[in-house]
This record gives sequence, C-alpha cells and structure tokens, in this order.
Amino acid sequence: MLGFAERLVEAVRRFKTPLCVGIDPRWDQIPLAVRQPFGGAVPNSLEAVALAYETFCGRVLELVAGKVGVVKFQVAFFEQCGSHGIACLERLLVKARELGLLNIQDGKRNDIASTATAYAEAAFGGPSFGGKRFLVHSIDAITVNPYLGSDAVEPFIQQARSFQGGIFILVRTSNPGAGLFQDLMCPEEKLYRQVAKLVESFNLGNSGPAGFGDVGAVVGATYPAELAELRQLMPNTLFLVPGYGAQGASASDLAGAFRPDGTGAVINSGRAITFAAKTNQPDWESQLEMACEKAKGELAEVCPL
Amino acid sequence: MLGFAERLVEAVRRFKTPLCVGIDPRWDQIPLAVRQPFGGAVPNSLEAVALAYETFCGRVLELVAGKVGVVKFQVAFFEQCGSHGIACLERLLVKARELGLLNIQDGKRNDIASTATAYAEAAFGGPSFGGKRFLVHSIDAITVNPYLGSDAVEPFIQQARSFQGGIFILVRTSNPGAGLFQDLMCPEEKLYRQVAKLVESFNLGNSGPAGFGDVGAVVGATYPAELAELRQLMPNTLFLVPGYGAQGASASDLAGAFRPDGTGAVINSGRAITFAAKTNQPDWESQLEMACEKAKGELAEVCPL
Repeated sequence: MLGFAERLVEAVRRFKTPLCVGIDPRWDQIPLAVRQPFGGAVPNSLEAVALAYETFCGRVLELVAGKVGVVKFQVAFFEQCGSHGIACLERLLVKARELGLLNIQDGKRNDIASTATAYAEAAFGGPSFGGKRFLVHSIDAITVNPYLGSDAVEPFIQQARSFQGGIFILVRTSNPGAGLFQDLMCPEEKLYRQVAKLVESFNLGNSGPAGFGDVGAVVGATYPAELAELRQLMPNTLFLVPGYGAQGASASDLAGAFRPDGTGAVINSGRAITFAAKTNQPDWESQLEMACEKAKGELAEVCPL
Repeated sequence: MLGFAERLVEAVRRFKTPLCVGIDPRWDQIPLAVRQPFGGAVPNSLEAVALAYETFCGRVLELVAGKVGVVKFQVAFFEQCGSHGIACLERLLVKARELGLLNIQDGKRNDIASTATAYAEAAFGGPSFGGKRFLVHSIDAITVNPYLGSDAVEPFIQQARSFQGGIFILVRTSNPGAGLFQDLMCPEEKLYRQVAKLVESFNLGNSGPAGFGDVGAVVGATYPAELAELRQLMPNTLFLVPGYGAQGASASDLAGAFRPDGTGAVINSGRAITFAAKTNQPDWESQLEMACEKAKGELAEVCPL
C-alpha cells in the first residue's frame, strides 16, 4: 500500500477537490425521519442515539463517496454515546474505507511516550497482546496535540508509518482564542511557528513522490494570513484545515493553503454540508448533495487542481 | 454534594495519604491466573482482553479502596480494546464510586469550544438529546490539554462545576521531552508558567473552604524544582502529580508539591503498585497491597498530613 501522503494527494486529485466532509453527528440536527425508529424527537436510549448516528452517518458516507476522497470523524460526538458510540464509530470507519474514502479520526490525542504508543497502536495496526495482533480501528490518519513535545509525538509517527497511516499535529487551531498560547513570542518567534518547524522537520527526507511527508498539520481557515505563512514555512507538510463553513471562514480565506498545483491541503466542512437541510425536510439527501457540490464549487475557485 | 476540590481534600485527609493509584492495565503484565479464563498468555479476542482488564482492575479497586481515596484511569489502555474497553471502563468508574473512591479519567481531551462541550457533557452529567439527559460516564475529574487556549478549556470547567466535578489541566508534564515547548521563554516567562497563571486565574474567587478551586493542574514529579515553584505560583490550585514510581521520580522529589498542611496534591503511582508482582506469582494481591502501603509510607515522609 502507498504511504498516507501519497494516498491523500491521489484522493484529492481523483475527485478534483480538497474538500473533506466532517462527520460530527448531533442528535437534535439529524433528520427526524432518520431518528424516528430510534425514538423520534427524544431517543429511547444512548444505544438508540448511537444507532441513529450510524444510520445517518452511514448514509452521509454513501452520498459523498462519489464526490470527495476524504472524510473526518469527530470522536467527541461518538464518545457522547459511550461504548455504543465507539462501536458505531468503529463500523463507520470500516464503511468509509469500503466506500473508497480515506478517513481521519479527529481525537487530538496526546500523552507521554508509553501511553502515546498505546493510543497509536489502537489507531494503526492494532495492539499486540501475548504476541498476537488485534485490529481495533480501521483508521487512515488521526489528529494529535503537540503540547507534550517531540518525544510524545514520535510514537504516533512511528506507528502510523509502519501501517501506511498519517497524523495531523495541531499547529494553529481554528477557535477564536487560539492565540492565547499559540501566539506567544517564544522568545522571538510565535509558539505555533515553533510547532510548525518541528512538524516540518519530521517530513524532511521522508517525503514521497508527491512531495509531502506523512506528518501533517492542523491549521485553521479562520486565520488566513497564518495559513499562507505556514504554507511557506512547511513546504513538505500536508494541511488539514478546519474552520471553513459553519465556523465562519470563506473559500477566499483558503487560497494560501495550497501549493501552486492545488495540492497540499484538505479543507474540512462538516455541519454546513451534513446538516444543510432542516430536520423536517424529506429531501435532506439531495440538499446534502447540493451543499457538498456547492462547497466543491467554492473551493474550485481558489484551489487550482 | 460538595464540590470536587472539597471532596478531594477530604479523601486525602481521610486516608492520610496523597497517594492516587493509577489504573493502567496492560495484558502482558496482568497475573496469569487472572488471564487464564480469557485465553491465558494469548487472549481469545479484544473483548476477552477487556473482560480480563475489568476483572483485574475491579479487584485492584477492591484492594486499594480501604487504603487510598483516589484512583486515576488511563483511557488509552481501555481504548486499545475498542468499544469493549470503553464499556469496561464505564463499569469500573461506577465500581470505583461504589467503593468510595474518587476517580480521575486521564484522557487529556481538548478541542474547540463546541466540541469541548460534547466531551465535557460525556464526562459530567451526560449529554442532553431532545431535552432528555443521558448519563454516560460516572466521572469525578478529567485531564485536559491547554494548547487551544482558554475558550477551549472553559466548557470543561463550566460542565464540571455544574456537576461537582473537577478538571486537571496539563501544565508541566512528566515526560523527558516536556520542555521542548513548555520551557520556551514566552517572551520573558516560560510557557508552562503562562499556562499555570491561566489555571490559577480560574480558581481566584472560586475556592472552597479547603482553599482550592475545581480547576487543578498536572505537574510532573520528574521536575522537582518546577513542582515547588508552581506550588508558590498557584496557591489555590490542586495538583495531580504523575511520574512517581515507575517513571523514576522518588518521594523526596515531591516535597514541594504540598502546602505546609500536606494538602494540595495527589501523587499518582500506577505500574509500581498494580504490577508489583511477577505475572506467575499467586500472591499478587498481597504484593500489590504491600506496594501500596510502601508508597504510602514513602509519601508520609514528605507529606505532613
């Protein structure tokens, strides 16, 4: 199998779009018709919520599978359903792969090296118990938080590379208060640029034919100047860009994310696509498809693929 | 119910020890006798691993319940068993509470505010679907990573406070490479001190009768000078201190963590207690109890409770 960076660039080129559809299920926003067998407005149980998520998200995957190459699952919304939610997420990750979609699991995990290894094994390849390997999740890439430093990030990289997976390290997040620590001068350069340099260093000498390594960066679309600046600072690093759509960034904010050939970034949009319809609208599937095509059209204006 | 800080200080005083037992199950280190029904050296399935973890960790909780007031669960090792592991963790959290143990779920979660809220609801009080609340985890406190800044941490604090829970924000982690970013001068003071000041600010005006607020800090025992310095900088903040025991810090490294009255910190020790015995030793329970008493004795030397 090709490495993650090659597979991501290939997926972006195949569908001629950097769009990544974000799978962030929220009970109250799912079409009522989908919720009906699971209790309607009020769910029967946590397991019913998880099963409704599986039905809805499974259908979303089918609807977008011919249109985009990448999807991102936000773990928090599945954790809200406890173990039922995790079981549902496991099956959805498999389904995404079966549909030919690359999947990113957005859990922003982080810990000291021995524990980071445990997380990384669960994500890539599966842990080994008594010398036997057990597959847990079928994941292509995960997100990782860098606060603990390089030795805490490296186990994720090693395990990802061993199984043709990738990681995206948080560099510049999309939230309004992202700068509180990330913008501190440390001492002559901002913290997020220090993190960016670490990320890029992992890719030096490790880039594939497409010119990127398997260690990506999360860079928010809500900070367009930083996005363009980081593209220069990290020429061999793939970006996962949140913030476009419901979080407020527009397509024109994204121009700086790409290389001249249009590669280099996937742009995530979740709610604006998956919840395009009101919950009582029977044509939610076609509205979702239209929202996906609309986003692709907007991105085509700024991404010269 | 009392707030989290009051409950933690009360638990520490009741058992006259700051010791917190870390629950970090690893298949290959669990007594063979416990693993036998689940496959012996090689487990039958991921579910069998989770059930062995539940048996072992459940017994650990029973053994330490009369000796310490607090336990910490490392989520990564349960995630290694997929949804089965999360189901097992859910039941162990309940069991810990039933045994009168305060529980800390160590998952180091972090995300933008709307997603942080989803994590926080899963941890404290349970999410609301269609206006009805569903309990997910029975958690007293969780760990949180601060890289995203204040607006991403606040949903955890709000939700915790609403349900008498607490959070511990990573300030100075225990890993060898912790300083890569945490020690950067930003621009005149190190990053971890900037994070420390944010944490302390959440507790100003929010401290209970014991003198602490519900927003704690993770500060590694492996950096004794920083531990003492942070105790001064954060007088109203409870510390969760990893690194004692298997990670290499000794009890004498911990003296700076406490207030003069011995309150202010819980000291985590996991593997050194739970895996005190070799896997083939039938007296593992008594060895575990002895290791727990030994740690309590060492800590009593430096903690004037």
